[in-house]
Amino acid sequence: MTTPPDELDAADPLAPFRDRFVIDDDLVAYLDGNSLGRLPRATLDRLAAFVREEWGGRLIRGWSEGWVDLPVEVGDELGAALLGAAAGQTVVADSTSVCIYKLLHAAVGLRPGRDQIVIDATNFPTDRYLVESVASARGMEVRWLEPDLVENVTADVLAAALDDRTAVVLLSHVDYRSGTLLDLPGLTRQVHEAGAVVIWDLCHSAGAVPIDLDAAEVDLAVGCTYKYVNAGPGAPAYVYVAQRHLTDAAQPIAGWWSAADLFAMSDTYEPSASVRRMLSGTPPVAGILAVQEGVRLIAEAGVDAVRTKSEQLTAYAVELVDELGLEVVTPRDPARRGSHVTVRHPDARAVTERLVERGVVPDFREPDLIRLGLSPLTTSYAEVAAAARILGEVTAPIG
Amino acid sequence: MTTPPDELDAADPLAPFRDRFVIDDDLVAYLDGNSLGRLPRATLDRLAAFVREEWGGRLIRGWSEGWVDLPVEVGDELGAALLGAAAGQTVVADSTSVCIYKLLHAAVGLRPGRDQIVIDATNFPTDRYLVESVASARGMEVRWLEPDLVENVTADVLAAALDDRTAVVLLSHVDYRSGTLLDLPGLTRQVHEAGAVVIWDLCHSAGAVPIDLDAAEVDLAVGCTYKYVNAGPGAPAYVYVAQRHLTDAAQPIAGWWSAADLFAMSDTYEPSASVRRMLSGTPPVAGILAVQEGVRLIAEAGVDAVRTKSEQLTAYAVELVDELGLEVVTPRDPARRGSHVTVRHPDARAVTERLVERGVVPDFREPDLIRLGLSPLTTSYAEVAAAARILGEVTAPIG
Repeated sequence: MTTPPDELDAADPLAPFRDRFVIDDDLVAYLDGNSLGRLPRATLDRLAAFVREEWGGRLIRGWSEGWVDLPVEVGDELGAALLGAAAGQTVVADSTSVCIYKLLHAAVGLRPGRDQIVIDATNFPTDRYLVESVASARGMEVRWLEPDLVENVTADVLAAALDDRTAVVLLSHVDYRSGTLLDLPGLTRQVHEAGAVVIWDLCHSAGAVPIDLDAAEVDLAVGCTYKYVNAGPGAPAYVYVAQRHLTDAAQPIAGWWSAADLFAMSDTYEPSASVRRMLSGTPPVAGILAVQEGVRLIAEAGVDAVRTKSEQLTAYAVELVDELGLEVVTPRDPARRGSHVTVRHPDARAVTERLVERGVVPDFREPDLIRLGLSPLTTSYAEVAAAARILGEVTAPIG
Repeated sequence: MTTPPDELDAADPLAPFRDRFVIDDDLVAYLDGNSLGRLPRATLDRLAAFVREEWGGRLIRGWSEGWVDLPVEVGDELGAALLGAAAGQTVVADSTSVCIYKLLHAAVGLRPGRDQIVIDATNFPTDRYLVESVASARGMEVRWLEPDLVENVTADVLAAALDDRTAVVLLSHVDYRSGTLLDLPGLTRQVHEAGAVVIWDLCHSAGAVPIDLDAAEVDLAVGCTYKYVNAGPGAPAYVYVAQRHLTDAAQPIAGWWSAADLFAMSDTYEPSASVRRMLSGTPPVAGILAVQEGVRLIAEAGVDAVRTKSEQLTAYAVELVDELGLEVVTPRDPARRGSHVTVRHPDARAVTERLVERGVVPDFREPDLIRLGLSPLTTSYAEVAAAARILGEVTAPIG
């Protein structure tokens, strides 16, 4: 017998954060904050003020009055609040895909003479496609890990692929399908022992799972902001470059915003000595402000409190799905999962459609997975309970 | 004796468009719409509705309800209204720098066996830096044109650099410093006669100068939207790929949004057969909507009417600056210039600062240039006259 959801919500120290978001939709349960987070009220106000007063009122002067520094300023805030990154190593820029591309080139350049990039076949498509593209451009080989979806990349799986040909390993901190949380410090150490460089894709973890990139001596990292950071559809991504690599991390999209002196309009290109070298073109100001508001909400709640609620939400979801007799794919040990719970069902696509018709929004992943994304600042236990009830109804055998 | 500005404004058929923009700043004259255009009122409303109702209210469902098509949908609108591009060849994406990078790689791939990229030393820094980066990555040589700043790239200048080693020529339609408008159809023909591919950078022309990419048989083009398209600071860019090149134009930032089936999450990468292949990551939805509103205003005014006013505004500015006895750098033939007029002054930086103090915002370009950007939908003749009067005062010899 599970605890009634209203008791859990009443006892939830993060429950008041739900009121900091716009929630006036027609939904019974929004369980897709791991694809697109809800809209913070502060962001609504901030964007309106930015458009009307800053763009409309300050016009070009806005650049010298602060916009020019936003990629690094918000990068530093995000790094401190979510990534365990000291200032000067994180910058908000582009899309995740463009950032992965830049980091792959930078990483390969840090290990001349080595000719393999390692990635798992379970990784998100954009990561896999970009690894193939960069490997091909640099005359390298892709070495594929083929882990079990749920166990995902363990020390043993990784060990079998590492040798003195390994230049770079690209791993996702939380698997986008199973929700499995990888051992970031341990796998990072293992990559380093093989003399290679690691890139961590934090898309499905940052904002929901505590991360300490500096302490783990991670080399490079990347993530998006439209999931648990709640920065809106197509919000910009971020990259992290460890201080020790800043001088040598060379990325090829050498636009003017990566140059040492942005407005010198210099004859020759000299990359910035700072993390600005990871920029390329003019940054999307409104998008970065939305990132800043999203980051501040998480910082205010505290990543540890967020993680605690995430573990409890996922445990509650696992318990309720178990009661329905459906298959939970996600690891049962809370320490081994991120903030979504994945259910396997032979008719997953149809079940997802029926859930949406009933006002429950999860998402579907080919071929047979239903992801229940639990976003700690906005998801209530009542939502999880309602979703589980309706999931039971739409999957119940007829008659 | 010049015509009084109020008579010119009264006779201006585009004058009513000024009211379609937010103009409530503290400025006497905003002459930097060629760096950052003003805020359209429609954009203010559209962005507010998007954030509140679409992101806040539809959440993840927004993607399937229309956001997913925006890059191509708005690309088509922009192509039709501003570029003379039939549907299916233009897509809104990334920043100008990232788009130039993609197009350079695509262009090089269209001419295997040729090993030179041609660009002028007068081109915008980001274009030059990216040509150097891509040339280096592809084992190619950069062949520099060294034209006079004002004459810029003429047929003679270009002819001297073209031969059977030329793979790609990257040119800016309007020079960002002098305002010189290049002969896009003629130079395109010349590049083709040499068997090479041309990329046109339209940043400083599109939205102010009529363009007919299809008629001129341009291969590839790129531009920004925060200048004459008035889409806001850091708004996304666009790329154009001629239909005949779509099958072979290969760009290396092979993110999931460039794949044939976005949500198949396929094991192997297959680029989209459409212009979507030029995308990489998740597109910035709000930014694209702002592009759409900006494009619609220009479409409503009509590019030809915009061009007519642009020519008259620049002629008026040239006349007034002449009266002050200052040096006009921009070509005197309206057919040979875009929509900004550049003044050379030995103390250009200080003069710019004094103008800004007096409420006139132009912009300064190293070492001695002051650009007066005249944005046809928003700049009034009264602004130009006031700016010229104050320019006279701040440059007048003392005593």
